[in-house]
Amino acid sequence: MHTTTDPVELTSQLIRCPSVTPEEGGAIQHLFELLEDAGFVCTRVDRNGIANLYARWGTHGPVIGFNGHTDVVPTGDPAQWAHDPFGAEIVDGIMYGRGACDMKSGVAAFVAAAIDMASDDPHGSIVLTITGDEEGDGVDGTCAILDWMDQTGEAMDVCLVGEPTCPETMGEMIKIGRRGSMTAWLTARGVQGHSAYPHKARNPIHAMVQLVDRLVAFERVDASEHFDPTTVQVTSFDTGNSANNVIPGQCRAMLNIRFNDAHSSDDLKAWIEDEIAKVSGTTGVDFDIEVKVSGESFVTPQGEFSQMVSDAVAAETGVTPALSTSGGTSDARFIRNHCPVVEVGLVGSSMHQIDERVPVADIVTLKAIYTRILKDFFK
Amino acid sequence: MHTTTDPVELTSQLIRCPSVTPEEGGAIQHLFELLEDAGFVCTRVDRNGIANLYARWGTHGPVIGFNGHTDVVPTGDPAQWAHDPFGAEIVDGIMYGRGACDMKSGVAAFVAAAIDMASDDPHGSIVLTITGDEEGDGVDGTCAILDWMDQTGEAMDVCLVGEPTCPETMGEMIKIGRRGSMTAWLTARGVQGHSAYPHKARNPIHAMVQLVDRLVAFERVDASEHFDPTTVQVTSFDTGNSANNVIPGQCRAMLNIRFNDAHSSDDLKAWIEDEIAKVSGTTGVDFDIEVKVSGESFVTPQGEFSQMVSDAVAAETGVTPALSTSGGTSDARFIRNHCPVVEVGLVGSSMHQIDERVPVADIVTLKAIYTRILKDFFK
Repeated sequence: MHTTTDPVELTSQLIRCPSVTPEEGGAIQHLFELLEDAGFVCTRVDRNGIANLYARWGTHGPVIGFNGHTDVVPTGDPAQWAHDPFGAEIVDGIMYGRGACDMKSGVAAFVAAAIDMASDDPHGSIVLTITGDEEGDGVDGTCAILDWMDQTGEAMDVCLVGEPTCPETMGEMIKIGRRGSMTAWLTARGVQGHSAYPHKARNPIHAMVQLVDRLVAFERVDASEHFDPTTVQVTSFDTGNSANNVIPGQCRAMLNIRFNDAHSSDDLKAWIEDEIAKVSGTTGVDFDIEVKVSGESFVTPQGEFSQMVSDAVAAETGVTPALSTSGGTSDARFIRNHCPVVEVGLVGSSMHQIDERVPVADIVTLKAIYTRILKDFFK
Repeated sequence: MHTTTDPVELTSQLIRCPSVTPEEGGAIQHLFELLEDAGFVCTRVDRNGIANLYARWGTHGPVIGFNGHTDVVPTGDPAQWAHDPFGAEIVDGIMYGRGACDMKSGVAAFVAAAIDMASDDPHGSIVLTITGDEEGDGVDGTCAILDWMDQTGEAMDVCLVGEPTCPETMGEMIKIGRRGSMTAWLTARGVQGHSAYPHKARNPIHAMVQLVDRLVAFERVDASEHFDPTTVQVTSFDTGNSANNVIPGQCRAMLNIRFNDAHSSDDLKAWIEDEIAKVSGTTGVDFDIEVKVSGESFVTPQGEFSQMVSDAVAAETGVTPALSTSGGTSDARFIRNHCPVVEVGLVGSSMHQIDERVPVADIVTLKAIYTRILKDFFK
């Protein structure tokens, strides 16, 4: 190694940039300059006011990519924080700040590892895709970079996402896929009436209760090899009627479904529509359904790449990581259409919380994991 | 008959008094003066700002009573009315106005019948109990008069309530009781969490859905001789969560139960608590329950009095009335603790609606029914 870039100092610098989505806050620009100084060819791939960075070292294959984001969720009430959310204060070996684990530390670790590796002149290329729109809708972040790569002929052979992946202990988990996520908004339309004369009304709440009772029963089935079961959660059920003698005319429910590779969002929507038809048939209550799909489920086939990542984690932490598909969605759901993708990162337990934090030692360990993967990749 | 009091003119006078609960609007005072002039001993039995009238003709038994109210529900947007809500306009034999059927016409009919009967010097007494708090909570209206009667030794042997009792056709129905009514507010308290990790949360909506699904199943049973089945209606179900990836911590439901004489509100509350215990036991979700009882169910035993009322209706309308306990609550639920009570009145289909109305001929018929009952009672 000719260079040693400090990932802890870089994390501090990034936390001090107030880059709450959609603000760039200086974070993308800071990385642009740092990587350009280190010999990377840097391109801003901004879209719709979102700042994104594509940085490449090397001109030929093989190409290993990294993906991460510098945008962060809002702080909530800063008065509830014991530490400045944008201060990167270190107390007893713990660094505090918004983005400390999700995921300015992950970005800092892979940027530091990439700069050091580049100074060793490896046989291949390193691509860094760093976005400012992961905590928002995601459509103008990683998607913008992938679209631009398609247009310009840029490509990665494999990609690592630096999101937090460990529930409690450093090294215990990497992610080789994710469940899909979709949300359905259901509206039941009955017939309003007086609660003393229910036979003259059609209670939409009773019909909605029947429907969601059928739908939530689904979550008991369908675990598959790499996946937890598909789960159906009713996240809201609303009517807004304050009159105790009135049967309301309509009500709404919101469902969130996390689904494994036994399902697609199309299958699930068709299944909900079938269940609606059954309940409508017996109750006479009509339903509207509106669906938003955040991502389909996917899994990166196990092979050389996931084994390389797993071995690197085990070597640096002493823990053999579980290969998981648990958790929410991440930008890996977009990258998986481009190349094999594996997520490996820190402990995520404080993400999005007050006093978000990261042990400084874990940032150093994460850089070491990424460095080992880079060395193995270019060997 | 020495006197002929016009019930249509009296209805008009009462509609022109803007007596929206709790306002007296001049209605009670107008009746006070009219009845005093006719030889009734009149007493204002006001309580907590509500005007009530107790009027008695005669000093000895038997005593027949009438009960009614001059207060009305609000008009809603007057611009939606085709007729002045306080104008008592008559078009094509139909009188329009707030209270036209509920129940200034009923009060006018029994006051007119009572004045005429009194002028015939019957052997017994006529008591009129007319209140200004039926459309509100009811506690300072009929209850205030009944409390005062208990304190002063006044009593009725039987009582007629002049509320609208016919669904569509004059004469088709009288009421010999009412179902009880109670409302329960249920709060389910689970554990908030992320919808991707439902095993770390306890979804209160799923538990509430299970609970209300069990409770509404109840309505299929328990018809009894004079009663429709007990019905359980969920009148609202609310959460107020807009985040599709959050399992909320709590939700609320409101139930309205109309119950027949197979039940008491205490039994029903105990039953709900039993069902809550079952659902809490399997889900770990806690529930709070808050109950308000509007009235217990009751039925006036069929006998000489209900037969007399039924015969009078049949004689004046040519229709033999059904003896029913259907519909909402009325002040009969209080009077039934005092003496046998039967409700007989107009067609109620426009009550509480825009352009509330009554056929003028029906007011005349209703006075004739009350007159016939009075004659039969004193015969």
